[in-house]
Amino acid sequence: MPKQRYKITIAYDGTKYAGWQVQPKDVTVQSILEKALTKMTGTRVKIHGSGRTDQGVHARGQVAHFDSETAVPVSKIPIVVNGLIPSGIKVLSARRVAPDFHARRDAKAKEYRYFISRKIIEDPFERLYTANVKRKIDVKAMRRAARAFVGRHNFQAFTAHKRNSTIVSHVRTIYHVRVSESDGIICIAVKGQGFLYKMVRSMVGCLIRVGVGDVSPDCLPEILKSCKRTAKVPTAQACGLFLWKVWY
Amino acid sequence: MPKQRYKITIAYDGTKYAGWQVQPKDVTVQSILEKALTKMTGTRVKIHGSGRTDQGVHARGQVAHFDSETAVPVSKIPIVVNGLIPSGIKVLSARRVAPDFHARRDAKAKEYRYFISRKIIEDPFERLYTANVKRKIDVKAMRRAARAFVGRHNFQAFTAHKRNSTIVSHVRTIYHVRVSESDGIICIAVKGQGFLYKMVRSMVGCLIRVGVGDVSPDCLPEILKSCKRTAKVPTAQACGLFLWKVWY
Repeated sequence: MPKQRYKITIAYDGTKYAGWQVQPKDVTVQSILEKALTKMTGTRVKIHGSGRTDQGVHARGQVAHFDSETAVPVSKIPIVVNGLIPSGIKVLSARRVAPDFHARRDAKAKEYRYFISRKIIEDPFERLYTANVKRKIDVKAMRRAARAFVGRHNFQAFTAHKRNSTIVSHVRTIYHVRVSESDGIICIAVKGQGFLYKMVRSMVGCLIRVGVGDVSPDCLPEILKSCKRTAKVPTAQACGLFLWKVWY
Repeated sequence: MPKQRYKITIAYDGTKYAGWQVQPKDVTVQSILEKALTKMTGTRVKIHGSGRTDQGVHARGQVAHFDSETAVPVSKIPIVVNGLIPSGIKVLSARRVAPDFHARRDAKAKEYRYFISRKIIEDPFERLYTANVKRKIDVKAMRRAARAFVGRHNFQAFTAHKRNSTIVSHVRTIYHVRVSESDGIICIAVKGQGFLYKMVRSMVGCLIRVGVGDVSPDCLPEILKSCKRTAKVPTAQACGLFLWKVWY
């Protein structure tokens, strides 16, 4: 078979993994998938994700690409790979793409969703997939504050410093931030063109501080303008965050 | 403080535990709760559950009682205990009861719920709390077959042999078996006066065989009458089962 490029969509429970990206010592989602694909194809496979997710962050729709000369029919790739990996990671779909398709560079938009449980006694069955906030939360104030994020802004106040970072610009475009609630779970859906390191968790951390009344919803434009991270912008827990969808 | 009897309601994610009941070597839900209550009260506490749950089985409404002379106000017991135990176990409520209340003997009825996911590719976020059946399932056939369980029957064909069992009768009364479906998850709710060892998982195991077409729904009265366990009655996976509610 000639070399083909494949695009796969992956869901994973990030609880036990050291994030997406291959690490020298830790088990990551990428390393598990590369091992399985290498086993399936018989030759060393390297995969390229749409972006990293941090330790403990989940995904419903991570996307990656890889090249292979495999004889396995594309429709069978999810079944074969899922048979080789732990049940907390699932390849949802696979398809052949043009040889110049690139999971990271061609991504037009991404949506993350962050889930917050407001139960006084945390539900043991939600604990791995929601952040728990026991204080009273004003969802309307969060919704009002979130409007400040929409549009093109410098998000330097909403990112964490990363070692060896080569980032030149902190300007990013956010298409929407939707705050909804059902069954005692608040969902914050953030769609944007691209995101900085820990940007969604920083945005959510600030919105939670607004929700519990520690930060005024009117402060957000100022915080953005300051380009300086302060105590008003904590990083929300990893377990509440899902990479939801990537658009191409 | 004079000795008081307390009734607590507990939810737990059974994934990592060797069931409810204290075991010589393994970590169980009962042993974790007894350690925490002993720490809270300063004297050795023994708790009595409404019944055991097996390794990997979950609970939304397990009930237990214990005696204590603790000075901790009853309304604070959930908060204090939850601060001493892993997040997968939660005391939902506590109240004082009469000194002759007994969590097992006074239970008038119990409801278990069993969840089955029928997704072709299992959802990583449901995998710990549902059984996955990839074959086509006829929910109506399961519902029809389930009627045979309702009423007073000898359930010897739907139990597993237990070492050192002192059981004299296999007759039990089932109030209802409700089979419903939403969002691709089948729920089987079984309410009865009492249950034999592995009885719900055996009933569900047989209903799944009916659902996939391996066993005719009309066979169930015969299987009950036979009082003999056969291959028509496998034990369904532990992870799909929840002890849902106990009535007093």
